[in-house]
Amino acid sequence: MQETLHALTEYWTGRGCMTVQPMNTEVGAGTLNPATFLRVQGPEPWRTAYVEPSVRPDDSRYGQNPNRLQTHTQFQVILKPDPGNPQELYLESLKRIGIDIAAHDIRFVEDNWANPATGSWGLGWEVWLDGLEITQFTYFQQAGGITLDPVSVEITYGIERILMALQGVSNFKEIRYAPGITYGEVFGQAEYEMSRYYLDEADVAANRELFDTYAAEARRLLDARLPVPAYTYVLKCSHTFNVLDARGAISTTERAKAFSTMRNLSQQVAALWGARREEEGHPLGRVQPPASPELPADAVAAVPHLAEPAPLAFEVGVEEMPPHEVTQAAEAVRAALAEKLGGTRLAHGAIRVVASPRRIVALVDEIAPREEDHQQTTRGPKLAQAFDAEGRPTKAAEGFARGQGLEIGQLTRIAVGDTEHLAAVKHIAGRSAAEVLAAVLPEIVRELRSDKNMRWNAPGLSFTRPIRWILALLGEHVVPFTVSSLASGRTTRVHRNAEQPELQVAHAEGYVKLLASHGILADADARRRLVVSGADALAVWADGHVDTAAESALLDEITNLVEQPTPILGRFEEKYLDLPSQILTTVMRKHQRYLPVLDASDRLLPNFVAVANGRCDEDRVRAGNEAVLRARYEDAAFFWNADLKTPLLEMKAKLGLLTFERRLGSMADRAGRIAHLADRLAAAAGLGEADRRTVQRAGELAKFDLGSQMVTELSGLAGTMAREYALRAGETVEVADALIETEQPRSAGDALPASAAGAVLALADRFDLLAGLFAIGSAPTGSSDPYGLRRAALGVISILRARPELARITLGGGLAAAAELQPVSVPREALDEAHQFAVRRLEQALLEDGSHGGNTVEAVRAVLPLADAPARAEATLTELERLTGDAEFAQLAAALQRVRRIVPAGTEPLYDTALFEGPAEHALHNAFVELRSRLGEDRGLARFAAEGRYLVGPVNTFFDQVMVMAENPAVRANRLGLLAAIDGLAAQVLAWAELS
Amino acid sequence: MQETLHALTEYWTGRGCMTVQPMNTEVGAGTLNPATFLRVQGPEPWRTAYVEPSVRPDDSRYGQNPNRLQTHTQFQVILKPDPGNPQELYLESLKRIGIDIAAHDIRFVEDNWANPATGSWGLGWEVWLDGLEITQFTYFQQAGGITLDPVSVEITYGIERILMALQGVSNFKEIRYAPGITYGEVFGQAEYEMSRYYLDEADVAANRELFDTYAAEARRLLDARLPVPAYTYVLKCSHTFNVLDARGAISTTERAKAFSTMRNLSQQVAALWGARREEEGHPLGRVQPPASPELPADAVAAVPHLAEPAPLAFEVGVEEMPPHEVTQAAEAVRAALAEKLGGTRLAHGAIRVVASPRRIVALVDEIAPREEDHQQTTRGPKLAQAFDAEGRPTKAAEGFARGQGLEIGQLTRIAVGDTEHLAAVKHIAGRSAAEVLAAVLPEIVRELRSDKNMRWNAPGLSFTRPIRWILALLGEHVVPFTVSSLASGRTTRVHRNAEQPELQVAHAEGYVKLLASHGILADADARRRLVVSGADALAVWADGHVDTAAESALLDEITNLVEQPTPILGRFEEKYLDLPSQILTTVMRKHQRYLPVLDASDRLLPNFVAVANGRCDEDRVRAGNEAVLRARYEDAAFFWNADLKTPLLEMKAKLGLLTFERRLGSMADRAGRIAHLADRLAAAAGLGEADRRTVQRAGELAKFDLGSQMVTELSGLAGTMAREYALRAGETVEVADALIETEQPRSAGDALPASAAGAVLALADRFDLLAGLFAIGSAPTGSSDPYGLRRAALGVISILRARPELARITLGGGLAAAAELQPVSVPREALDEAHQFAVRRLEQALLEDGSHGGNTVEAVRAVLPLADAPARAEATLTELERLTGDAEFAQLAAALQRVRRIVPAGTEPLYDTALFEGPAEHALHNAFVELRSRLGEDRGLARFAAEGRYLVGPVNTFFDQVMVMAENPAVRANRLGLLAAIDGLAAQVLAWAELS
Repeated sequence: MQETLHALTEYWTGRGCMTVQPMNTEVGAGTLNPATFLRVQGPEPWRTAYVEPSVRPDDSRYGQNPNRLQTHTQFQVILKPDPGNPQELYLESLKRIGIDIAAHDIRFVEDNWANPATGSWGLGWEVWLDGLEITQFTYFQQAGGITLDPVSVEITYGIERILMALQGVSNFKEIRYAPGITYGEVFGQAEYEMSRYYLDEADVAANRELFDTYAAEARRLLDARLPVPAYTYVLKCSHTFNVLDARGAISTTERAKAFSTMRNLSQQVAALWGARREEEGHPLGRVQPPASPELPADAVAAVPHLAEPAPLAFEVGVEEMPPHEVTQAAEAVRAALAEKLGGTRLAHGAIRVVASPRRIVALVDEIAPREEDHQQTTRGPKLAQAFDAEGRPTKAAEGFARGQGLEIGQLTRIAVGDTEHLAAVKHIAGRSAAEVLAAVLPEIVRELRSDKNMRWNAPGLSFTRPIRWILALLGEHVVPFTVSSLASGRTTRVHRNAEQPELQVAHAEGYVKLLASHGILADADARRRLVVSGADALAVWADGHVDTAAESALLDEITNLVEQPTPILGRFEEKYLDLPSQILTTVMRKHQRYLPVLDASDRLLPNFVAVANGRCDEDRVRAGNEAVLRARYEDAAFFWNADLKTPLLEMKAKLGLLTFERRLGSMADRAGRIAHLADRLAAAAGLGEADRRTVQRAGELAKFDLGSQMVTELSGLAGTMAREYALRAGETVEVADALIETEQPRSAGDALPASAAGAVLALADRFDLLAGLFAIGSAPTGSSDPYGLRRAALGVISILRARPELARITLGGGLAAAAELQPVSVPREALDEAHQFAVRRLEQALLEDGSHGGNTVEAVRAVLPLADAPARAEATLTELERLTGDAEFAQLAAALQRVRRIVPAGTEPLYDTALFEGPAEHALHNAFVELRSRLGEDRGLARFAAEGRYLVGPVNTFFDQVMVMAENPAVRANRLGLLAAIDGLAAQVLAWAELS
Repeated sequence: MQETLHALTEYWTGRGCMTVQPMNTEVGAGTLNPATFLRVQGPEPWRTAYVEPSVRPDDSRYGQNPNRLQTHTQFQVILKPDPGNPQELYLESLKRIGIDIAAHDIRFVEDNWANPATGSWGLGWEVWLDGLEITQFTYFQQAGGITLDPVSVEITYGIERILMALQGVSNFKEIRYAPGITYGEVFGQAEYEMSRYYLDEADVAANRELFDTYAAEARRLLDARLPVPAYTYVLKCSHTFNVLDARGAISTTERAKAFSTMRNLSQQVAALWGARREEEGHPLGRVQPPASPELPADAVAAVPHLAEPAPLAFEVGVEEMPPHEVTQAAEAVRAALAEKLGGTRLAHGAIRVVASPRRIVALVDEIAPREEDHQQTTRGPKLAQAFDAEGRPTKAAEGFARGQGLEIGQLTRIAVGDTEHLAAVKHIAGRSAAEVLAAVLPEIVRELRSDKNMRWNAPGLSFTRPIRWILALLGEHVVPFTVSSLASGRTTRVHRNAEQPELQVAHAEGYVKLLASHGILADADARRRLVVSGADALAVWADGHVDTAAESALLDEITNLVEQPTPILGRFEEKYLDLPSQILTTVMRKHQRYLPVLDASDRLLPNFVAVANGRCDEDRVRAGNEAVLRARYEDAAFFWNADLKTPLLEMKAKLGLLTFERRLGSMADRAGRIAHLADRLAAAAGLGEADRRTVQRAGELAKFDLGSQMVTELSGLAGTMAREYALRAGETVEVADALIETEQPRSAGDALPASAAGAVLALADRFDLLAGLFAIGSAPTGSSDPYGLRRAALGVISILRARPELARITLGGGLAAAAELQPVSVPREALDEAHQFAVRRLEQALLEDGSHGGNTVEAVRAVLPLADAPARAEATLTELERLTGDAEFAQLAAALQRVRRIVPAGTEPLYDTALFEGPAEHALHNAFVELRSRLGEDRGLARFAAEGRYLVGPVNTFFDQVMVMAENPAVRANRLGLLAAIDGLAAQVLAWAELS
């Protein structure tokens, strides 16, 4: 191992990197070393390479897990500015440490790196060696909240992983560290003991205090304008936070708070460092942006004119794009090309754009040799103003002619409506195809954008990943242009391991086939077909199949991860099949992009299909991928077994250690409130005895899996694991289901609780969250919603919409009940605010909801007064939709509007038939009484619309015959009272005013 | 610089060292990295080499000092076990990084390394490159309080220093760090900012809390048997302590307490680590002790027999011994040789032993070829018991003969007194000289000991530094023997830079001359002569001289630091002469072993004489030494100038930050008490008006220089700097002197305060210390006296002995007055204890004091009752000495003893002359009254002895004629009362009982 570090150091110092020493306070990653975090700031150049033992308390495994270490060794490289070929430099470094890059499957897999604790992010990749992440490769875009200019390239090698692969050992302890001594012999005891500290022994109270002390010290030093020592304390905060986290002592809300503290401090450090370097006059100088390549002035003119139409091959060469961007980028280039060519007079045939991770290839058939010529007429002054009485040109005419570069005599006249104008008519010769394309194509490159864009060493460009080459061939000729630091040409790049990784292309014709003949399938459809049939063929050997329909999304992703798909069948040990399949497939799909292999009964087989990129030594690549999966499953099994040994209530007891929110108590407190509230809601909703019992038992267990090791490690499995563990601990299926349902829906589109008991628990969970956090003034602001309150409110809405039988649980009632259980008093206004917040979510949901796609703002607003019962609001809205265009309903609405408009707000709905002066009044009264009795308790829109039509005539007659605003105040008040009664009844159904 | 680190790493990994990364928490030295501290423990082998950025908050200089850095880079090597040639390996490494070791003066200068904070120590050297300490080289003997077996060799390179010398730059910022970038460019800003933190900004309260938190965490982890994480917290304690120290927030007592905390923790960590490794079965194996070299069984016998006497040359080759050990070792070998040869029958001539740092050479003239033969007679049983009646040998006789290996017939008879015995007489042939020497010489080696001994890879040997070779030549023959892992031979080693560093010696004759011809002056006298005359000759060039008489101690030291003295004259910039000369000469003598050069008026010239070892490039060596001195003076000037800008009371204000002792308040509180107490003492002692004013002003300023940067850095200059700064701030000479005198005596033998004002302040200082610390129960125990109370008490005693005019200040009075001013209540018993403690110091002082060398325990005990006034006690003792042998005094003493013996303790000294029954009583009464009136107030022994003789007759007559124990109780009581009165008077003079 020491030789490897030595070799990397030698390699990178040979490329102008300076070495520094690891940071002398615990850091979680090489990025945090000031030699990265501070030095990537500002305009000064910087190249460094160093070792960084990175401490991740969370990864502690007592040294028992063969792949996880609380301290692992990173080798960190910073290249500032981007040298233009960092991937190539990196691959060369792998060779230097003995990796045969032609034999292995080395891939750059999308990784949008972000470090919220420091307000830093960048785009780049995980580099995979046979499925094993060995390096993080990032174009650093922001650090400490500051946009970086120039951008730095950050390469972080995971040394232990690389060495395990290189040395072919399956346990970190067996790594040969130095001649005659293993990694385990050097670090084994420390690994065990530090794990003990981080997982079991660290004093939680003391570490909390340390965090605060460090943060305070950092703040003081920022005030003293000392970014360097301030930063050391930010690092100490960060490590302390990690220790607490590993001890399981950090709740969601605490995490949010700590991250906000650390982010603020980091950002201030970064800003202050920048300011201080500015004051010092940037001692290391300034990076100059790369120059644009020189192109001869007549380069375009020099392109030989075509005699006949020719095809265009236009390729934008990119470092590995994220899979979903591959598809989008192809479409974007197609659209841009069509539009821009459409804006010229250049005739052309079909446009086809295909794309792979490293290229977007546009092919245009039959480009005409040149644009058509045309006349261009420019209108000048009116004739009357162009010549004076003597017929001599005025100054206006002379000025126009001069402006057009013509003599007065060369001008003509045109009629514009009734008026004659002087005009200039020019013959515009069509440009050559090369000229047109040399103008259009760079614009396309310049305007390329993705969902998430980055910068690199190409000023003015911004795209998902760096664009490194441009091929532009019109027939056999290069369309010459430059864009930013790039120049178009006839060179493309194929697989990096190819004998000739660069290829000179003679002619645009047949370009996609040419690529294919060099192993590159540029067309996604072709790649997908190859993956599907290849995977399926391999699955046969395992006596299984791949469910290509179910894995459609994964297949799409795989298709865009490779240019030269090479499916490989791998195995894992059967013993892992004892784990819940959800864990196994999640790991395969999410982490490894492996296709699961199923038997005839669709049960998981101990096999998978990985798809490598390009030719490689398949046995080696298979073995590598199998080792990676084994490591991941080993990890999961470790948690699984540890958790299974732990009684549910023992896990639950750990919730007392997790602060939920300082003022709102521990996670145990919160779970207790959820249980209590759920029981109340169940009673209110009138759930049956069996459901009530389920709610009560699931309430007792609520959130217990937050105390499990699996969920501590993989928080996404919260609820899922609760169900698994509960079943295995002998709980009923109903209780187990209710436990997972408590967490549903976890995101927009996620399943809703399937049982009433689960729904009630889920509601209780969210009412508690909303009431508590609004009570302490932690409502979401702007884009910041650290506690996920929007999601919580939407969850409540979705569940209540989906379960009309729980109608007796209202938003207001649920929040009020939750408020009573909070450990803090909940002000009336806070509760109203929470209620309003939930109503707005409903409004939004109804507006956006697919099934109500046609809803107008008016219709949604009309049902909002019913929002307290979302199911009813939704039903009303549906009815409203149905009634749209119903003439009778329109009359009813109009009549009710007439009523509403005349009744002053606050009018008492009281009247005395004795004061009626004519039959119209009596008729209206009778119709109203009749309607009321027909409706009974029902205030649904359907019934109301059906019965209400009998009201329309009497209302209209009333208004025609009766003078509401009678002079006699008593009569007037009586008439208004009658109308107010009608309005009051109608308002219980709908906000009619919104319909006008 | 990175190339240098790289080269060292490569060099040492090539020698089996493993590299590890620097510690990821701040450490003050590479030694503290667990790869050293823990791994040197126990029997497992270990070889490591690593870089360690070492953080020394105290060395912060805002990056302004060209040589001092808060973080400097160490390169640390551990070789376990000692490979036997670590110095040679080390020198080779210097060549590897481009140091021409032949051109430079490289020396191994004694350094007894100890790290009290971890309970670790070792013996070894600072390695000097032209006077610059570039490496610490230590044989690690103990770590964490545990004796190390095997011993590790620790080599710690100071990288910045080495590079400054190598690159010839005079400021660390100019070091070329990597191609195109300097050290200052990489680390300059951090250096400034971290200095700001350590010196100005670190929050003292927060850091104190951190210290406690860390210590508590370490303790908990020890309880959990986790030495590794516990140790990280010990390191964090240590760094936090260093931060507080740099902030000037650590008082003497706090330091003692913190060190004790850290030492305890470290020792527990080390012990626990050892236990854990034992439990693990020592995974890295066990170091086997080196085998003793094989010697043929007949090796000694094979030495050719000498025909005539021959000289012996016996050399013990040692790695550089400390200077004072050179002399002692020579004497020890001489004595041992004389004694051991004296115990044989081998005739020999004169023995002469000379020594240099690397060798002890014994030369014995005229060793006889062999011992004389002799008869050995062994007495057997009495003849009477040897033969039975028939004259046959008894069993006793047979047994004796068998025991002697003889037949009965071979026995003879001898007379012992009157009895005849059977006897065996054997002829013992003298051994050859080689045989004798082969037995004697290894014993000498084995028994060699020094003041402070160490172990290395030679089991059974223990000496000041490792013994590496043994030359033993008898004439032309090797005397063959082995001792531990060494074998004698004819090889010696000369200067390491010699063309042939090893020399084969043909013959013992002329060995010292042979060495001289190879540049080695083995004889210290010769070396000293060369140094003295050489230095003096060089001083001429600077128009000055070296005060060789005054520098005698330094010359002795220099003489034993080199084998081949090469004096070199250097200069320093005149501007430094503005600093007080005491600072300059202290630095020269103590730190650099340079001889100061004085002008005709004995004023310091800007020159010095350094003495290199062996031939070298003198210009380079001179330049190097000058650069070192410049750096040291630059440092001093930095403090000096900073302090001069600070008003005295501003420095004093910083004392509020220094806790003296938690319960006894800050150093400012203590200074306040000293001022108050000194004023009281001055009043009590009746000092004059001017002295009183001096005491008051000096009291106001007391200890202010503890707030100066110079004293914070060089605590030994406390008082000295107070005087300098006070004078420059316009205080009177008297006040300035009193300030330095407050600190006197600083050690046994140091000057006492020269002025009365100074004496009073010094007394107040010490009374305060004693009263306070005894009050809180911090009296010294056993060998532990962290607060220096023994020294304080001795100081009080010395001052009071020397100043009889301060007689009105007594031990008891001073302590009582100090007690009143303490912030804690001082129990009566504590005060008594303190008083007794001081009295015991006086007793000891009087017993040991040179001027009272002849004092008997009795005499000293006799004057101890007067100890409360030490001057009087001493005067009395002196008088007692004078009176020794005076017959009259002896009679007086005897008479008073008669009185004392008869008077029961507690008898009231009351009597009534009316109850007298005879003239003897009246005579005694009259003599007593007469004596009392003659003495007046004087209770001095001289006067008492002179006047007391008139009492002798009446006392003796009284006892002859009067029956004291009369039957009449009143008469008896009256007589006893008279005697008690006499006894009471005498007791005020002396404890007469002790004289008997």
